[in-house]
Amino acid sequence: MEQLKTTKENNLSRPSTPLLDKIHLPEDLRRLPESALTEVANELRAETIDAVSVTGGHLGAGLGVVELTVALHYVFNTPEDRIIWDVGHQAYPHKILTGRRDRIRTLRQEGGLSGFTKRSESIYDPFGAGHSSTSISAGLGMAVASELKHEKKRNVVAVIGDGAMSAGMAYEAMNNAGSLDARLIVILNDNDMSIAPPTGAMSAYLARLVSSPSYRNLRERAKALSKKLPKFFWDKARRGEEFARGFLTGGTLFEELGFYYVGPIDGHNIEHLLPVLKNVREHPNGPVLVHVVTRKGKGYAPAEAASDKYHGVSRFNVVTGEQIKVQSKAPSYTKVFADSLIKEATLDDKIVAVTAAMPSGTGLDKFAEKFPDRMFDVGIAEQHAVTFAAGMSCEGLKPFVAIYSTFLQRAYDQIVHDVSIQQLPVKFAIDRAGFVGADGSTHAGSYDTVFLSALPGFVVMAPSDELELMNMVRTAAAYDQGPISFRYPRGEGVGLKLPERGELIEIGKGRILREGNKVALLGFGTRLQDALAAADELGAAGLSTTVADARFAKPLDEDLVRRLALEHEVLVTIEEGAAGGFGAQVLQFLARDGLLDKGLKIRTMTLPDKYLYHGPQSKILSEIGLDKTGIVNTVFAALGREALVTPQIRA
Amino acid sequence: MEQLKTTKENNLSRPSTPLLDKIHLPEDLRRLPESALTEVANELRAETIDAVSVTGGHLGAGLGVVELTVALHYVFNTPEDRIIWDVGHQAYPHKILTGRRDRIRTLRQEGGLSGFTKRSESIYDPFGAGHSSTSISAGLGMAVASELKHEKKRNVVAVIGDGAMSAGMAYEAMNNAGSLDARLIVILNDNDMSIAPPTGAMSAYLARLVSSPSYRNLRERAKALSKKLPKFFWDKARRGEEFARGFLTGGTLFEELGFYYVGPIDGHNIEHLLPVLKNVREHPNGPVLVHVVTRKGKGYAPAEAASDKYHGVSRFNVVTGEQIKVQSKAPSYTKVFADSLIKEATLDDKIVAVTAAMPSGTGLDKFAEKFPDRMFDVGIAEQHAVTFAAGMSCEGLKPFVAIYSTFLQRAYDQIVHDVSIQQLPVKFAIDRAGFVGADGSTHAGSYDTVFLSALPGFVVMAPSDELELMNMVRTAAAYDQGPISFRYPRGEGVGLKLPERGELIEIGKGRILREGNKVALLGFGTRLQDALAAADELGAAGLSTTVADARFAKPLDEDLVRRLALEHEVLVTIEEGAAGGFGAQVLQFLARDGLLDKGLKIRTMTLPDKYLYHGPQSKILSEIGLDKTGIVNTVFAALGREALVTPQIRA
Repeated sequence: MEQLKTTKENNLSRPSTPLLDKIHLPEDLRRLPESALTEVANELRAETIDAVSVTGGHLGAGLGVVELTVALHYVFNTPEDRIIWDVGHQAYPHKILTGRRDRIRTLRQEGGLSGFTKRSESIYDPFGAGHSSTSISAGLGMAVASELKHEKKRNVVAVIGDGAMSAGMAYEAMNNAGSLDARLIVILNDNDMSIAPPTGAMSAYLARLVSSPSYRNLRERAKALSKKLPKFFWDKARRGEEFARGFLTGGTLFEELGFYYVGPIDGHNIEHLLPVLKNVREHPNGPVLVHVVTRKGKGYAPAEAASDKYHGVSRFNVVTGEQIKVQSKAPSYTKVFADSLIKEATLDDKIVAVTAAMPSGTGLDKFAEKFPDRMFDVGIAEQHAVTFAAGMSCEGLKPFVAIYSTFLQRAYDQIVHDVSIQQLPVKFAIDRAGFVGADGSTHAGSYDTVFLSALPGFVVMAPSDELELMNMVRTAAAYDQGPISFRYPRGEGVGLKLPERGELIEIGKGRILREGNKVALLGFGTRLQDALAAADELGAAGLSTTVADARFAKPLDEDLVRRLALEHEVLVTIEEGAAGGFGAQVLQFLARDGLLDKGLKIRTMTLPDKYLYHGPQSKILSEIGLDKTGIVNTVFAALGREALVTPQIRA
Repeated sequence: MEQLKTTKENNLSRPSTPLLDKIHLPEDLRRLPESALTEVANELRAETIDAVSVTGGHLGAGLGVVELTVALHYVFNTPEDRIIWDVGHQAYPHKILTGRRDRIRTLRQEGGLSGFTKRSESIYDPFGAGHSSTSISAGLGMAVASELKHEKKRNVVAVIGDGAMSAGMAYEAMNNAGSLDARLIVILNDNDMSIAPPTGAMSAYLARLVSSPSYRNLRERAKALSKKLPKFFWDKARRGEEFARGFLTGGTLFEELGFYYVGPIDGHNIEHLLPVLKNVREHPNGPVLVHVVTRKGKGYAPAEAASDKYHGVSRFNVVTGEQIKVQSKAPSYTKVFADSLIKEATLDDKIVAVTAAMPSGTGLDKFAEKFPDRMFDVGIAEQHAVTFAAGMSCEGLKPFVAIYSTFLQRAYDQIVHDVSIQQLPVKFAIDRAGFVGADGSTHAGSYDTVFLSALPGFVVMAPSDELELMNMVRTAAAYDQGPISFRYPRGEGVGLKLPERGELIEIGKGRILREGNKVALLGFGTRLQDALAAADELGAAGLSTTVADARFAKPLDEDLVRRLALEHEVLVTIEEGAAGGFGAQVLQFLARDGLLDKGLKIRTMTLPDKYLYHGPQSKILSEIGLDKTGIVNTVFAALGREALVTPQIRA
């Protein structure tokens, strides 16, 4: 257990946290005087930095909400009151305060704490997350339920970042909340910095609110304003809580949507936060939005200085801030994609790129450097991203939409209704397909092959290595008959020497890499590498093995599949995706063609039918049998031979 | 061809349309003087009413935009300028003006015009639709593409209803547009009446704008205001176009989102519309929102008087407005669902219902009458609907989310991320599963079984008749281990005598309806009825046939499937859904279990891999072979016998 050793080493230099040491649960925090809270926050920040230096993870977001976390748990009666952290990656300080400090240095490690909120992990996590912009909907549901059940008054607080406000889902929830009387408190955590630089009109609007005189001169103006406060706030305001509401800014947009707007206030000043939060806690009914301004990475100089504010970091040296990066042997699939797309775009000025707040994660930041007018980051707005691309496609452009597999789920209807039905040649670059490691099941790219292969006329590809990825980028750029996609995993390629430019692949044609006559292994995607290794082992065991690269889940290479079925006793398909995808396509073709009528030992290896824990990709793949040994064992089992090793699956 | 006969009869009483008769394309319209346009609109309204009286379809929406349609095609240079009708069901007048008048009485009929816009139908339909709220995204894509390609200045106009503004996708698009300089014109067609009564804060906001003094007294105030107009509008305004902008209302919310707001203006007054549209046509850059107030069903007394403003109508008598309803033999699945849910909710006060702007379509309007506090119509906001329900589920309520199959695609990520991963017992009532008739491919419920069956722990059911639907409603209400769904078709049930209340079904247990030993037919959903009929025919042909009702696509009744596989020569699965769903689940189980190793004549009957035309459900099912004859032929083909009839598929 490498990380435990590291933790131990780190113990030597752990920060001194005398106040925090006495807080095991929020009720301990609530017994402290208000005057102690700033110091608690300082200790909590030091502890957070130290923990993440050991584990890696999302640091900047958590540092931005340290004071807010303390203030929320101080003012609200958690867990009876519900605090929902949108996305959940900013909840490390929250975890430390809610009974998980003893495990905080297992964050994102195998068997350790999740890097997000998780209902199964703690009663203080009333709603799990990972994807953004869900908290207002969930919170509204909780608030409504509480009222419907006639429970004693319960506060529900959703904490959502300004970046997450670009998602339509957040607006849908605000729009619904604004027309109900439910007591919902939304804390808009405005750090003007989602994963990528802020985009969109909402972001500009918030910036105007924050830069307005009422925010900058709030102290000076507070007294003059206090007379204008409504009675409800006025009573509180007279007791010195002059920061309750930024009248001059008004937050009209939110008010028009039916929210009572309070802010903007300094989210790093506990003396400002407490009275406001106490006020809204007593708010009689209807939704309230508290606009809190914070700084991502706050209080840790290396984070504040970094352009991404240490959004996601490797383990690092606390003193210098230097991150310990694992040396990679080959370029990542992400990089190969981006380089290939830039190459194609150099040759074809109709190629444009669209991303949804993931410019660096998808590699499109490099595309934007080269072609600033041809890259569109639409913010966290996958639905719009896809239909926006569809519109561009109608006018003859060739849009590549680069979205992680897990986030593409948000745009399924747009893929069906706006792209597929109209057969528009939009190109989908699906990154993070399959397991993603420490981010866990909320981010696993499991379903894309299933939900895309179901669509008539959709070309669904997966490269088996980085050279094939180059070929597929070029093929997608050239294909003009309808939508086309290619999925590729997180992490580095095989290490092939790469040419200047990819080759065109014939649509619907796979390839045979190795010829045998007893067993056929048919891979879709990068699991093919393990199939090749398994073939060696099978050959050594006397089983002559063919290895084929399907390349296409749709249109299926029916000639290839037919040949594999007719010329082998065993046919195994392998993919890093849920059942219902590539293997199902193969089975349904074989059934239709009568190729199962006389018997075929066919097995479809897919992801297992359960949500898996977070941990190293290679280790999980091994445990679920999607590696070399698993493939060999599947073949052995089909032939009635004894397995090499029995894989174990952990939920 | 019944509808042709009807059209002919109707010819006798066709309205007199001397001006419209001269307009074959918009360029003909543009040659008329402005003074003729109101009369053109009157004729266009009469023609629309008359056409829909013959075909049935969406009437109210089209009547509300007659003047707007005339004005848009008069001011803008279509098809070079792009007009995108959101949803597309209000585009009948547009179709009449754009070369499709000769086919307008084939609307929604088999082989006739689509009830929505469709790219393949006309160059004047730059973007097809059916689902709502896509037009701003598509329009922004077109506007950006036009600028990127350095084409001559092109106008892109998206016409979107106020109901569609509750969808997050529209907000995502506005948010993106507001931060770009693209020349996009959004016409907000505010008829305060989507399919259901308006919901949400945006709706209330628009109502405030419309009821404001500046709208009511626009004429009086226009002169006083004109001096405040910005120079650009001022130049125009001095030439009498005093309706350019409602200054007192301001439309702050849209302005804050980066749009230049103009309105509200009377959408039935061509003299008001023309100067405003000309103004915005000359707007130098950046997005503009024109707030137009219209009346759904305008100008046809029976529609104006109807509570739903003739949203969707059957054929009707033009004089009386009386709709010609086809007499149904049995209650619809929708009604059986609603009645059953009301029954369960009477017995369990934790049951609540959620719909996304489809209270009558899902039957939940009746639920709301009985339990007004326990029904939540969140507007066109499927994403929010699902996560809102997840939040309620966290607090112990038992939410039923009733959404059409095709619209549930919009909430796929929320189903995965907020419901399934957390294993929350949210219940999904999936109406309009399978073919939907005249609405065509944009509304077909094809993919739900595919995308839900892929999710670990999800219980996926389909009733084979209305009694089974009652059972599944009760089963879903009682099930508390995780998410559960049931899909049922548009249209009426089998006509069974129904009990007071459904029975509980054991999770994962199918049932055998008829025992045989040569052929097994395994249905998922209401196609089972045709399987029973096919079994009769197969029996008559000497093939002893078992018929089984799977009930569950997940968890599969593995004992049942195993038995069917082992005890029969032929096994056919039948479902009204895309490949990758139920049949794929059966195949993958059989492969895993080694049940294909020795040969099984298995066939999985699914929807074909193409988008189908609109037309009668029964006829399409017959053409694609998903009826009795198709099932018999599939069995015959598997056994090498000659088919009864060769089915033909039309794209």
